[in-house]
Amino acid sequence: MATLFISPGACSLASHVVLRELALPIQVERVALRTPDSPIRQINPLGRVPALQLDDGTVLTENSAILPYLADQVPDTPLFAPAGSVERAQIQGWLGYLASEVHTAAFRPLNRPERYSADESAHPGIRAQAQVQLLQAFEHIERRLDGRQWLVADRYTLADAYLGVFASWITRIGGPFNELRNVQRLREQWLQRPAVRSALQAEGLL
Amino acid sequence: MATLFISPGACSLASHVVLRELALPIQVERVALRTPDSPIRQINPLGRVPALQLDDGTVLTENSAILPYLADQVPDTPLFAPAGSVERAQIQGWLGYLASEVHTAAFRPLNRPERYSADESAHPGIRAQAQVQLLQAFEHIERRLDGRQWLVADRYTLADAYLGVFASWITRIGGPFNELRNVQRLREQWLQRPAVRSALQAEGLL
Ligand SMILES: N[C@@H](CCC(=O)N[C@@H](CS)C(=O)NCC(=O)O)C(=O)O
Ligand SMILES: N[C@@H](CCC(=O)N[C@@H](CS)C(=O)NCC(=O)O)C(=O)O
Repeated sequence: MATLFISPGACSLASHVVLRELALPIQVERVALRTPDSPIRQINPLGRVPALQLDDGTVLTENSAILPYLADQVPDTPLFAPAGSVERAQIQGWLGYLASEVHTAAFRPLNRPERYSADESAHPGIRAQAQVQLLQAFEHIERRLDGRQWLVADRYTLADAYLGVFASWITRIGGPFNELRNVQRLREQWLQRPAVRSALQAEGLL
Repeated sequence: MATLFISPGACSLASHVVLRELALPIQVERVALRTPDSPIRQINPLGRVPALQLDDGTVLTENSAILPYLADQVPDTPLFAPAGSVERAQIQGWLGYLASEVHTAAFRPLNRPERYSADESAHPGIRAQAQVQLLQAFEHIERRLDGRQWLVADRYTLADAYLGVFASWITRIGGPFNELRNVQRLREQWLQRPAVRSALQAEGLL
C-alpha cells in the first residue's frame, strides 16, 4: 500500500486532508523532522514532508504535485478540474502561490531565520520582515475572497484544502491576521469538513 | 489572442520557452517590473511575470501552473504526461521544487535581500546564506542528474525547460556552481534547442 509521510501540523497536513477527502487507500506514517537519523531521510533525501511513497517505491514530493496526483486518482472529483481547463490552471496557480509566496517566502523565514542568515543578531529583523511579507501575501488572498466563498470556481477545491493549513498557522500570530475576515471564514468552513477533522484527529491536533 | 507578459531574462523565460516549444498562437509582451506605473499591475496585482492573459481576460500566474496549462493545450506532447500518471506528478514535483526551493528560497534572498530584512547591514549575511541554500538546492539536482540526461523519464519535459532558466542564472555566480557538471551539461543541451534560442532572441539575450 502507498504511504504518505507526515509530521503533525506541518504543511503535510494538506496532503493528509486531501487523502481523506478522496478516501484513498493510502496509509499515513508520522516521522520526526530535523533529526539526523529520522527515517524520512531514507525516503526523501531532503528530509522533508510531505512525501508520498507509491507501491513500486517511487517517492513523490511537493504539496503542489501530490495534491493534483491524489485528485487525479478520482476522475471528476469536484476538488480539481479536467486537464487543459482554465479552472485547473487556476487551482494549480493557487497551489503554486501558497507553496512559493506564502510558505517559502514568508513562513520559512519567520520560523527558520537561520536558513536566511548565519548571523544570529539578524534574526529578529528577518522575522519582522517575514511577518510583513506574510501579511501582504494574505492580503492578496483576502481580496481574492471578497464576495467568494472559495478561491476558485464557487466550490471547495485543492486550493482551499491547502489554504486551510496556512490559515490555521496564522491564528498563532494573531494581531492583524485576525482581521482577515474572509480568510478566517474560509478556515472555519474548512475546519467543519469531516476529512479535515479526521486528519486533525489522526495527527493528534483535535 | 492570448498574451504572455514577460520581462527579458526573468523567470518568465520558462513560460516563453514552453510557448515556443509548443508553437502556440500566443503573443508575447514585455513589461517593466518594479515601477509603480508598470502596465503589469493592471494585469497581475502582484506586479509579477509571468502572467498569461487569456482571450476572455482571465489571468493565469505562476510558472508551475502556466507551464502545465500550456502543455495541456497540445494533447500527447512529450513535454508532459497524462493526468493521473506518476510521470506527470514527478514533472509537477520538479516544477514545485524549482519554484519554491530554488527560486523563492534561494534566488529571491540573493537578489532581493530587502524583502528579508529592513536592516541594510543584514543584507550581506542574507546574500551569503542564500548562496549556501542555492548551492544545496542545486546539489540535489546535480545528484538527480547522475546517469540521466533529463530530470524525468529520459526525455526533455517542462521540468527541464524551467531548470534551464535557473541553470543559466547560476552561470553569473560561477565558483562552485561551475563544478555542477550535470547541470551545466543540461543547460548546454537546453541552449541548443530551437525554441530556447528563439525565445532568447526575442528577449534580446542572444
Ligand atoms: N516545497 C515543499 C516544502 C516542504 C517543507 O518545507 N516541509 C517542512 C514541514 S512544513 C519540512 O519537512 N521541514 C523539515 C526540514 O526542512 O528540515 C512542499 O510544498 O511540499
Ligand atoms: N512564484 C512566481 C514568481 C514570479 C516572480 O517572482 N517573478 C519575478 C521575475 S523572476 C518578478 O516579476 N518580480 C517583480 C517583483 O517581484 O516585483 C512564479 O513562479 O511564477
